[in-house]
Amino acid sequence: MIVEVGAAKSITGPDSPMLTTTREVTIEWGDCDPAGIVFYPRYFAMFDWSLWNHFARVGLVKHEMVRQYGIVGCPMVDTGSRFMVPSKYGDVVRIETTIPEFRRSSFRVLHRLMKGDTLAVEGTETRVWAAKDPDNPDRIKGVPIPEDVIARFR
Amino acid sequence: MIVEVGAAKSITGPDSPMLTTTREVTIEWGDCDPAGIVFYPRYFAMFDWSLWNHFARVGLVKHEMVRQYGIVGCPMVDTGSRFMVPSKYGDVVRIETTIPEFRRSSFRVLHRLMKGDTLAVEGTETRVWAAKDPDNPDRIKGVPIPEDVIARFR
Amino acid sequence: MIVEVGAAKSITGPDSPMLTTTREVTIEWGDCDPAGIVFYPRYFAMFDWSLWNHFARVGLVKHEMVRQYGIVGCPMVDTGSRFMVPSKYGDVVRIETTIPEFRRSSFRVLHRLMKGDTLAVEGTETRVWAAKDPDNPDRIKGVPIPEDVIARFR
Amino acid sequence: MIVEVGAAKSITGPDSPMLTTTREVTIEWGDCDPAGIVFYPRYFAMFDWSLWNHFARVGLVKHEMVRQYGIVGCPMVDTGSRFMVPSKYGDVVRIETTIPEFRRSSFRVLHRLMKGDTLAVEGTETRVWAAKDPDNPDRIKGVPIPEDVIARFR
Repeated sequence: MIVEVGAAKSITGPDSPMLTTTREVTIEWGDCDPAGIVFYPRYFAMFDWSLWNHFARVGLVKHEMVRQYGIVGCPMVDTGSRFMVPSKYGDVVRIETTIPEFRRSSFRVLHRLMKGDTLAVEGTETRVWAAKDPDNPDRIKGVPIPEDVIARFR
Repeated sequence: MIVEVGAAKSITGPDSPMLTTTREVTIEWGDCDPAGIVFYPRYFAMFDWSLWNHFARVGLVKHEMVRQYGIVGCPMVDTGSRFMVPSKYGDVVRIETTIPEFRRSSFRVLHRLMKGDTLAVEGTETRVWAAKDPDNPDRIKGVPIPEDVIARFR
Repeated sequence: MIVEVGAAKSITGPDSPMLTTTREVTIEWGDCDPAGIVFYPRYFAMFDWSLWNHFARVGLVKHEMVRQYGIVGCPMVDTGSRFMVPSKYGDVVRIETTIPEFRRSSFRVLHRLMKGDTLAVEGTETRVWAAKDPDNPDRIKGVPIPEDVIARFR
Repeated sequence: MIVEVGAAKSITGPDSPMLTTTREVTIEWGDCDPAGIVFYPRYFAMFDWSLWNHFARVGLVKHEMVRQYGIVGCPMVDTGSRFMVPSKYGDVVRIETTIPEFRRSSFRVLHRLMKGDTLAVEGTETRVWAAKDPDNPDRIKGVPIPEDVIARFR
């Protein structure tokens, strides 16, 4: 599989404020490591679901969306996180998720995990709006993100 | 989905010694909880893969096997574990896996996680050899386990 | 570490109805396996947190409780699950948790994962109320469960 | 907790070739999601253990190292991954781990997950060599990485 990402011209940008979805997550015993704090790969799992929750909020439920738009999904191209403040089991945190930028066939995601008013973890993602390549069914390629998808997040 | 398990008459039993596969697993930092020992759900994940490793050893690679025999898989009916000795990250343990009993359309699995000569965790499973119900494609049902599958484990 | 469990005389029993705590869990994409359904070790992780949530509801927050009662925790002796109906991502399930029986130094836990009115997964646990063995600090042993702990669940 | 990272002057650099440790990992059924490919947070868990394996190879076993050098550990400041080629269960991949740069009290880590000769996933980390702040035991701060630690990786 090779992902072909289209030209990275931004369709949305800092001028168009995008929708933010917030969800509460309780840190569980099993999320934490022998240091007593969240084992950081767990943050990525929390962020992943925060994105699908963000899509669901605008009426795009993952498995329906895939069928409706003829895509295979939104594979991750790259993701990163910065860790400022650790959390431990029993903590209740808030994850704020937004899509700050849509490009032709990819989009960026920003997650901010808050402990009260403090930014504890920040996560970023680049994902592709991907369909099977009609010329090669073993490949997937980025296809244009429909305007009505983008409009839902404005 | 409802699983229909066939009559539980044992085809194999204590008289026919069955094949055992052993694999080594290193306990990782992320397998452990704030008490510094393996978070027990992780043992079930280790046991699950130990079973597919056991099948692979006799030439039955999971995704090929499913296609070859027209089944949907081997869904778990019940599983249990007893915990005698905890493990911590860095420990290298041995998991011994066997299928002590095949019935008509289900089979039992036994995992023994060893630390040196000590039995540390014991896991048991009952799984079904399951196919789509031809009368109702939304259901699956147990179907007879082919004799050539059983023969590979003797 | 060897766990010494005290005599298994039941202190509570079928005659004394015990408190049940229910929590909602949304099945996430990352909880599911290539078959599209929950990877069963994840149910054990959900059940584990359901128990600490049950304790917290009666005022026993795990890390405080450990300090307050001078125990090292409640290590699992054995656990098992039966799987009746699978779940997939996006499903919202309910987990009902209760402690049907307290013995001198151990207790049983029952989890019922419900999809609507259907029992989808049932989990059981036996755990020990464990402290460091004063005769051997490398061992832990079951100690009597304080009556005021038991009383909170009636 | 606030992490104070010391001045970011590089002690090692592109001129001093650093040790690389390679380990094989078999992708398991439970590592994969409903798309049939590795759920990406699992890569971070694999990379985390690859680092401790890299330390162990030069004689620095995590829990001993922490005691020996009086640190609390090597907390992550930031981490990122790029995903080029997906993997599915049964795949055997190779993870090559190196520490390309040591600074005064932090270091960078590079993981390259290979499928044959193809770079499938690349992960980067920045971690701090952290001890309790003597002025404030609730804080940790970066402390100088001992020269004999760095020397082991050359």
